[in-house]
Amino acid sequence: MRAALGQAARGLGRTSPNPSVGCVVVREGEIVGRGFHPKAGEPHAEVFALREAAERARGATAYVTLEPCSHFGRTPPCADALIAAGVRRVVVAALDPNPRVAGRGVRKLREADIEVSVGVLQDEAARQQAGFRSLITRARPWTVLKYAMTLDGTIATRSGDSRWVSSEEARTLVHRWRDELDAVAVGAQTVLTDDPQLTTRGVPGGRDARRVVFDRRGRVPAAARTLGPGSVLVTSAQTDPRPFEAYGTTVIAHEDLPGALRALGELDIASVLLEGGPVLAGAFLEADLVDEVRVFVAPKLLGAGQSPLGGPLHDFMAQARELQGVRTETVGHDVLIRGFLHPLPTVSTLTPEEIQTI
Amino acid sequence: MRAALGQAARGLGRTSPNPSVGCVVVREGEIVGRGFHPKAGEPHAEVFALREAAERARGATAYVTLEPCSHFGRTPPCADALIAAGVRRVVVAALDPNPRVAGRGVRKLREADIEVSVGVLQDEAARQQAGFRSLITRARPWTVLKYAMTLDGTIATRSGDSRWVSSEEARTLVHRWRDELDAVAVGAQTVLTDDPQLTTRGVPGGRDARRVVFDRRGRVPAAARTLGPGSVLVTSAQTDPRPFEAYGTTVIAHEDLPGALRALGELDIASVLLEGGPVLAGAFLEADLVDEVRVFVAPKLLGAGQSPLGGPLHDFMAQARELQGVRTETVGHDVLIRGFLHPLPTVSTLTPEEIQTI
Repeated sequence: MRAALGQAARGLGRTSPNPSVGCVVVREGEIVGRGFHPKAGEPHAEVFALREAAERARGATAYVTLEPCSHFGRTPPCADALIAAGVRRVVVAALDPNPRVAGRGVRKLREADIEVSVGVLQDEAARQQAGFRSLITRARPWTVLKYAMTLDGTIATRSGDSRWVSSEEARTLVHRWRDELDAVAVGAQTVLTDDPQLTTRGVPGGRDARRVVFDRRGRVPAAARTLGPGSVLVTSAQTDPRPFEAYGTTVIAHEDLPGALRALGELDIASVLLEGGPVLAGAFLEADLVDEVRVFVAPKLLGAGQSPLGGPLHDFMAQARELQGVRTETVGHDVLIRGFLHPLPTVSTLTPEEIQTI
Repeated sequence: MRAALGQAARGLGRTSPNPSVGCVVVREGEIVGRGFHPKAGEPHAEVFALREAAERARGATAYVTLEPCSHFGRTPPCADALIAAGVRRVVVAALDPNPRVAGRGVRKLREADIEVSVGVLQDEAARQQAGFRSLITRARPWTVLKYAMTLDGTIATRSGDSRWVSSEEARTLVHRWRDELDAVAVGAQTVLTDDPQLTTRGVPGGRDARRVVFDRRGRVPAAARTLGPGSVLVTSAQTDPRPFEAYGTTVIAHEDLPGALRALGELDIASVLLEGGPVLAGAFLEADLVDEVRVFVAPKLLGAGQSPLGGPLHDFMAQARELQGVRTETVGHDVLIRGFLHPLPTVSTLTPEEIQTI
C-alpha cells in the first residue's frame, strides 16, 4: 500500500475535483503493475496498473488507495476492470467518502468472488485525499494555514521585514506544497505590500497552484502580479469585476468566508494553502474554517515584531484551540509542527463490522 | 562514561561553586564502584567510587566526568587517590576549565604510569558543568532563558491569563530544572502580578533553587512570597536594603546586568533559570547575557496575546539571533526546542595534540 500511496502522490494537485489515487498490482511478492490517476477525464489508477500488469494480473493482488469506482462516469467502472483482469484479491486503503457510493465498489468485487480488505494505511490515504473528501462531504476545499515564525513568535519585524524567517529547506518544502495543493490564498494586504507571484519554484515537474486573493473591499489593483489568468479574486458585490476579468481573473462576490469557500469548491478547488497574512489567518480561524495548520518554527530570536495571527481569538488560555494529530519534524534548521483543527473528512459512515459484511 | 554522567546528574544543583562530577570504576566490564560529588566541602566523586570499589580498584579503569584535581583544596587531590588505589587507566570526559589547572591532573596520573584518555562524551560533560565552567572562565553564572508559548507565539492572553500554556509534563520538567539549577530569576512585574513561590514541586528528593528578583526600581514589597530567606533582590543603590534584609533577603545593588550577574556568582550561584517575564528576558537578551534558551511550543492557537520577549531587539529579520546546537524533543503535548546563544565555556585551551602529550 505504501507503493500505491507513492503512486497517488504523483497526481497530487493535478486531479481535482477527482482524488489523487494510486494502484499497484502484486504477484508473488513482486510489483507487476503500477498506476495513478493523472488528471480528471483521464483513466483511473487501476487502469494503468492493470495495463502494465497485463496477463500477470490474473490471480494477483491489487492495492488501491481509494475504493474502486462501481459506476459509469467519464470512464468505465474500475471494479469491472479488476474483475475482468482476474485479480484474486483487492486491498483498499479507504472507502469512497460519498455515503451513497461508499461500499458499492467493494460489494461488486465481493460478488465476483474477489477477496477484499479495507482500511490498510487508511489515515495516510485520507490525508492524501483530504481535498477530495472535503469537497464531497462539505462542499468546500480543505484549508491549510501555513506560516513561519521565530522562536519568539514573530513572522516579521515591526517594519515588515520577513526575509527570511525560515531556512531554505523550509521554503523549498512550501513550494512542494504549492505544487500539491489546488490553490494558494493571500489577503489584500499581502498583495498591496508584496504582490507575490506565488508560483512553484524549485520543484522538478512542478506546476503552479491557482492564486486566490481575498479582498472584500476591492483594494488590490487589477494589474497585480498575484492576479491574472488562473487566479481568483474573492470580493464583495460592490466591487466592479470587469477590470479584473479583463486581466483573466475570475471574480467571486461573497460577503462571508463560508460562501466564498463553497464558490471556490465549485471551481474545482479542493484544497487551499493559506499563505498570508495575519489578518486573513485570523479571519479564517475566527470563522473556524482552518482545517490543518503547518508552522515552521525557526530557532532564532528577533524581539518585538509582527505576530502570526491578526485579531483576538480568545480571552483565556484554556480556550486556545488545540491541534490534533500533531507531528513534528526537522526541516533544515527549522522545526515543522503540523496538526489538525478539524478531523480529516470521515472515511465512511460504515462501522468496521459493516465493512466486513458489505 | 554514561554511567559516570548519570552519577554526576545526582549532584546537579547541590555542589556550587564546585562542579557536579561523577565517577565509576570498571573492572572486567563490570562497574565495581560509583560516586558523585554531593556538596561543596564533601569528598569528590572519585573518593566515593574508589571507596566502593576497595581492592577491586587495583588494575581497574576509572571514568570521571571532569579531570581529577591535583591540588590540595578542602579535600586531598583525587589524582593521588587514583594513583594510591592502583587504577590502571583513567578516562576523563573534560579537562578542568581553569587554564592554570587544566592538564595538571592528567599529567600527574601519567607520571604515575596510568594510561589517560581525555574527551569521551566531552560535550555532555560540559553541558552538565556549564555553571561551574561559566563561574571559572567568566566569573558569572550560566543563564538559561525559559518560556512556554503557543504555536502562534503568545505566552499569555492580553489580560495576562497564562494557565496553562504548556502541558503538565512540560511544567514538571521545569520543576526538574529548578531542582538542577542554582537559582531561578524573575522580574519585578512577575512578583507584583503573581508573587510566585518558585519552589520545586513534584520532583522526588528535589530542593528549591534560590530565588532572584530583578527590581531596579525597588517596587516589590519586602514581604513578597518570592523573597525571604535564601532569596536575592537585585536592585539599585537607591533602594533601602533594610526592610528586605529584615525578611532574610540578600540585597545586591547593581545598576547594570553584567555587574549583577558577577555579584550572583560571588554568592556561589553558578546557574540561573530566567523564568519571567518578557521585560526581564528582553533586557537579558539586549545585554547579550542569555547563554541558553529552552522554549516549549504548545500546539495550540490563541490569537492575539502577550509576546515572550519585551522590547525591540532587531530591525531586520537577518539580524535575529540564531540558536546553535539546537535540539528538539516532544514533552507531553508540547515541543521543547533548546539551543545555545553562547558556546559552552571552553573545555580547555589545549589542542587535542597537546592533550595527548600533557
